Amino acid sequence: MTDPEALRALPRRCLPHLAEELRQELIDLGAEIGGHFAGSLGTVELAIALHYVFDTPRDRLVWDVGHQAYGHKALTGRCQALRRVKRADGPSGFLRRCESPYDAFGAGHAGTSVSAALGMAEAARRGGRDVRAVAVIGDGGATAGMAFEGLNHAGHLGSDLKVVFNDNDMSIAPTVGGLSRSTSPRGCFESLGLRYGGPVDGHDLEALIPALEWLRDARGPSVLHVRTHKGKGFVPAERDPYGWHATTPFDASSGARNAGPSAPSWTGAFAEALGRLMAREPRAVAITAAMPDGTGLDQVARRFPERVYDVGIAEQHAVTFAAGLAAEGWLPVCAIYSTFLQRAFDQILHDVALQRLPVIFALDRAGLVGPDGPTHHGVFDLAYLRIIPELAVAAPRDERDLARLLATAVRAQRPFALRFPRGAAPGAEPEADPAPLELGRGEALRPGDDVALVGIGKTVETAFAASDGLREAGIAAAVLDARFAKPVDEGLLVEAALRSGRVVTIEDHVASGGLGGAVLELLARAVPEAQVLVCGLPDRFVDHGDAAAQWREAGIDAASVIERTRRWLQS
Amino acid sequence: MTDPEALRALPRRCLPHLAEELRQELIDLGAEIGGHFAGSLGTVELAIALHYVFDTPRDRLVWDVGHQAYGHKALTGRCQALRRVKRADGPSGFLRRCESPYDAFGAGHAGTSVSAALGMAEAARRGGRDVRAVAVIGDGGATAGMAFEGLNHAGHLGSDLKVVFNDNDMSIAPTVGGLSRSTSPRGCFESLGLRYGGPVDGHDLEALIPALEWLRDARGPSVLHVRTHKGKGFVPAERDPYGWHATTPFDASSGARNAGPSAPSWTGAFAEALGRLMAREPRAVAITAAMPDGTGLDQVARRFPERVYDVGIAEQHAVTFAAGLAAEGWLPVCAIYSTFLQRAFDQILHDVALQRLPVIFALDRAGLVGPDGPTHHGVFDLAYLRIIPELAVAAPRDERDLARLLATAVRAQRPFALRFPRGAAPGAEPEADPAPLELGRGEALRPGDDVALVGIGKTVETAFAASDGLREAGIAAAVLDARFAKPVDEGLLVEAALRSGRVVTIEDHVASGGLGGAVLELLARAVPEAQVLVCGLPDRFVDHGDAAAQWREAGIDAASVIERTRRWLQS
Repeated sequence: MTDPEALRALPRRCLPHLAEELRQELIDLGAEIGGHFAGSLGTVELAIALHYVFDTPRDRLVWDVGHQAYGHKALTGRCQALRRVKRADGPSGFLRRCESPYDAFGAGHAGTSVSAALGMAEAARRGGRDVRAVAVIGDGGATAGMAFEGLNHAGHLGSDLKVVFNDNDMSIAPTVGGLSRSTSPRGCFESLGLRYGGPVDGHDLEALIPALEWLRDARGPSVLHVRTHKGKGFVPAERDPYGWHATTPFDASSGARNAGPSAPSWTGAFAEALGRLMAREPRAVAITAAMPDGTGLDQVARRFPERVYDVGIAEQHAVTFAAGLAAEGWLPVCAIYSTFLQRAFDQILHDVALQRLPVIFALDRAGLVGPDGPTHHGVFDLAYLRIIPELAVAAPRDERDLARLLATAVRAQRPFALRFPRGAAPGAEPEADPAPLELGRGEALRPGDDVALVGIGKTVETAFAASDGLREAGIAAAVLDARFAKPVDEGLLVEAALRSGRVVTIEDHVASGGLGGAVLELLARAVPEAQVLVCGLPDRFVDHGDAAAQWREAGIDAASVIERTRRWLQS
Repeated sequence: MTDPEALRALPRRCLPHLAEELRQELIDLGAEIGGHFAGSLGTVELAIALHYVFDTPRDRLVWDVGHQAYGHKALTGRCQALRRVKRADGPSGFLRRCESPYDAFGAGHAGTSVSAALGMAEAARRGGRDVRAVAVIGDGGATAGMAFEGLNHAGHLGSDLKVVFNDNDMSIAPTVGGLSRSTSPRGCFESLGLRYGGPVDGHDLEALIPALEWLRDARGPSVLHVRTHKGKGFVPAERDPYGWHATTPFDASSGARNAGPSAPSWTGAFAEALGRLMAREPRAVAITAAMPDGTGLDQVARRFPERVYDVGIAEQHAVTFAAGLAAEGWLPVCAIYSTFLQRAFDQILHDVALQRLPVIFALDRAGLVGPDGPTHHGVFDLAYLRIIPELAVAAPRDERDLARLLATAVRAQRPFALRFPRGAAPGAEPEADPAPLELGRGEALRPGDDVALVGIGKTVETAFAASDGLREAGIAAAVLDARFAKPVDEGLLVEAALRSGRVVTIEDHVASGGLGGAVLELLARAVPEAQVLVCGLPDRFVDHGDAAAQWREAGIDAASVIERTRRWLQS
C-alpha cells in the first residue's frame, strides 16, 4: 500500500489497479483473521477517491462508526498493522484520534460524523483556515437522530460542511426507513438546506472522482450521494452482505468459513428465553435498534416475524416507541447493547420510568467486550440505570436465571432492565416453564464466616473461584449472588455483613456507582460498622484487547480478587 | 368551557365563538398567574379542531412537550384547575397520563410525540382496534433527532400514524434549522415515506377541520402541515412570541408585565462569568440547544453574536458539535439544563470524554426545579456524570466560585462539567479576573469535631444552616464544601472523617450515586471505620410544586438535616 501523499501523486489511471490491490488485501485480511468485513469492501474506491481528492490529513475526513474504514486504515500507513486489528498490540477496529493523524475524529457509535465534521468546518471558518471537513456517513448511520440534528444545523449555519452519503441499503442488517428506500433522498437533504449532488456509482472511480471534486469545491453545506455495494468484489459477501458484515476467518477462494465458537452464547440464551416467553405471552413484542443479529432477535423473528421491530439505529426512538406500546397494554422487550442504550438514557427516565410503563430492557454486551474496545464496553449501565426511580435492574448469573428474570420482569409490570455479557454462557439448561423470582431477591450460594463475596451476573462465577482460592488460604468466604442492583436484597446483604463484618463486591463495571455503590449505600444505613471492598474497573477507559487480559488488568478476575481480599483482610 | 364530548356535539359554526372564549380564558389565566403563555395561544383553534375531529380520548392525542397544551387542558375538564397550574395542588404545566385520560402520553422534553404515537398506532393495529394515534409536534420539537428517528421508522412501517406538524417558526426562541425555513418541508416528509398534506392556516377553523378530517381518514403514515402564530390573539405576544413564551403576570389590556424577581439569578451569574471569560479567551465559543434565554446565552450573544451557537433542540448534536470544535483547538462551552443534558449522555462519554476533549458543560437548573416538576428536575447529573472517566464534575456554591470554576475548567484542558441550580444566587460578587482553583480541591469552611457536614453547590448553604442549628444542640459540626463530585478532594474528606469519624453528605440530587456515593466510595477505602449519613432525594420522582416544600419533603432542607443528623449521632 501507499500513503495518501504518494496516492495523490499517482496518475488517475493507476487508481483502479490500486483499488484492486486494496480489495485483495482486505479479502486476504478477512480470510486470515475475520472481523468486520463487508463494509470496508464496499468503500474501497471511496476511500481511495477521498484521499485522492482531499488533502488529508489537513482536510478532515470523519468516517462514521468505523466498520467500513479498514481501507482507509490500510491507505494511511496501517496496512501491516491491520493483521493485529483489535488486539491489544494492534490498531482499533474503529477510528481513534490517538492512532493516526488521518483519523480526524474517533468513532464507534453511529451517527456522530456529521456533528463532528460540522464542528470542524466551523473551526476552520473561525480560524480562517482553508481546511475542508468531510463526514462519510452510511444510509444506516443516517437513521440515527443525531445525524439529522447535525444536518439540520448545517443547513441553518450554511457552513462548508461536506457530507458523503454512502448509500448501500444496509446498516449491519438492511437499513430501516423511508429515506433508504426512497428513490431519491434529494428532497430531504434539500429541505434541510443542503446542496445535493449525485447519485454516483461509488465503485466507478471515473465518476466518483469528479463528483468528489464537485463536493470539495462546493460552497455551503453539501451532500454527495454515493451508491455502493456492501461486500463488493467478493461474491459470497455481495450475495449476503448482512451475513458477511462480520466474519470468522474463511477460505478466500471458496468463501467457506471456519465455524464460529460453538459454546452456547448469552445472546443465544436470551433469544431462546425470549422466544419461549413470546410463545406464552401474546402481548410481548421485541424491538431492536438495527442489531437483529447481534441481539439474537433475528432468531426470534424467524419464529414470530410479526412481533419483532427493527427501528433503525435509533435507540432513543426504540425506547419511546416501546413506551407507546406499553401505554396501550403491550409488553415490549427492547434488546439493545449496553453501550448503545446510553443513547436512550433520557428516554428510559422520562418516557418509561416516570410513567412506570412495563418496558423490559435486555442489555447484551454488558461488561468488558474485549476486542471492540472502549467505544463498546458496557461498563456504565448499573450506575446509570440504578439511579432511575421505578426501574428494576438485574443481571442473571446463568441461562436458567436469565429465563427466570425475564419471567420476573413480565410479572413485575414495571420498567425492568436485565444485563448480560458478551460471549459464552455457563451452560445451565433453562426450565421449560421458568417461574418468576421475587423482585429484589438475591441468593446466598455458599456459606463462609470470614468475608462475604458478592457478585452479580458474570462475576458470581468470579466470586466462586475467589472463594475457592481463599479457602486454600484458610479464609472462609461466603458467596452471594446479588442478582439485583436495584432494588438490592437488603435482607441478604445485611445478614452477610452482620455475619462477617466484611463484604467484597465484584462487578464487571466501573467501580463507581454500580453494585459496590449500592452495597455501600445500603450498609452505611443498615450496618455502618461493616467494611466493604469494591472490586470494579478503575476510573479510566479500557482499550481494545483480549477480554481475559482486560479483567486481569482491571483487577476483577478471580486471582486479583483473591489477592486484593487477602491484603484487605490483613489490613 | 365544555368537554370534548359536548364540543363534538356543537354545530361547526359555533366553534369560532368557542375559540374566542378559550383564547380569552388563556389570556386571563396568563395575566393572573403568568407561566407558559404564547405557545398555547397559538394552538387554540388547533386544540378545538383536534378534539372536534378526533374521538378523544379513544383516539390518542399525543402533544409534544406540553407548553402549548393549556387549551387542550382547558377543553378537557381542567379549566378551573389551571388557575393552580404547576402548584402542588394543581395540574402539571406539561402533560401527564395520571392527570387525565385525555393526556395519552406524558411529556416535558421535546421530540417524543412521534415515537410514542407510533407505538400507539402499532398497538391499535396489533389489537385490531379502530383507534387513531395523533402526534402534535412543533417545528421546534421536530429539530430533536428522535422525532426524525420516529418519522423514519413510521415511513418504513407504513402504519396509520398521524402527525400534525405545528409550524410556527419558533421553539422557545426562533426555530433553528433548514427545515423550518424551507418553503415546504414536503420533500423531507415524502422522502421519509409519509403522505404530506397542507400547509393549512391553523387559525382558520373552516380550513383546519377539513384538513384534519383528511388526516383522520388518511391511510398510512401521514402528516398535516399547519401554520400557526405563537401568541396569536394577544398583540404584544404576537409581536414578540419569544419574549412571551413564558411570562410573569401582566395587565391583560395593556400587556404591561409585572417585574420578575429582581434577585441575581444563577443563570445571570453564569452569563456574566461566561461573557468575561469569552472576553479574555478568544478560543471560547458557547452552544445552546434552543434555550438562549433560559441559559443566559442570549445575554452573551448580545456581546459576542458570532460566538454563540443555537443548534436547535438537539443536545446530542450540541455535544458532538462541541467535540468537533474542541478537536480543532476551540474551547466550547455547552450550556444545557441538567435534565436536557441527559439526552447527550452517550455523546459526553463517547465523543468528548473518551477523546479527552476540553469541552465545558454548564448545567443550569440542577437540583429540584419546583413548579416544572419531574420532567425537569436536574437530580441525576452528579451520578451519571461522575462515572465517566476523564470528566471533572463540580458545583459552585456562589457566583464567585462559579467564575473561578469556569477559569479552572479553561485551564484544566479536559472535559469539565459544572452544575448550578435554578433561581436566586447568594449574591457573592465575582472577581474581575477570577483565578483558577485547583482541580479536585474542596474547602473546609468551618471547623467542628463532632461531625462533618459536606455540601456541594447550593447545599453548602444548607450545611452552614444545619451547623448553626446543631451548635444550639451542643454539637460541633464542621462545614465542608466538596466542590468537586469528581475528582473528590480526598485529603479534605479523609481528614474530616478521621477527625470526627462521622460525615454527613447533603445534596440536591438523588441519594444514589452522587456526592454521597463518591464519599462512601472514598471512605470505604481510606477511612473504613468512618460512618456516613447520606442526605439526598429518596428514590422516587418528585412532583411539581414549591421548591422549598420539595426540599422539606425530601429531607434535604436544613431543619431535616439537623434532625436527621441528631438522631443519627445518637444511634
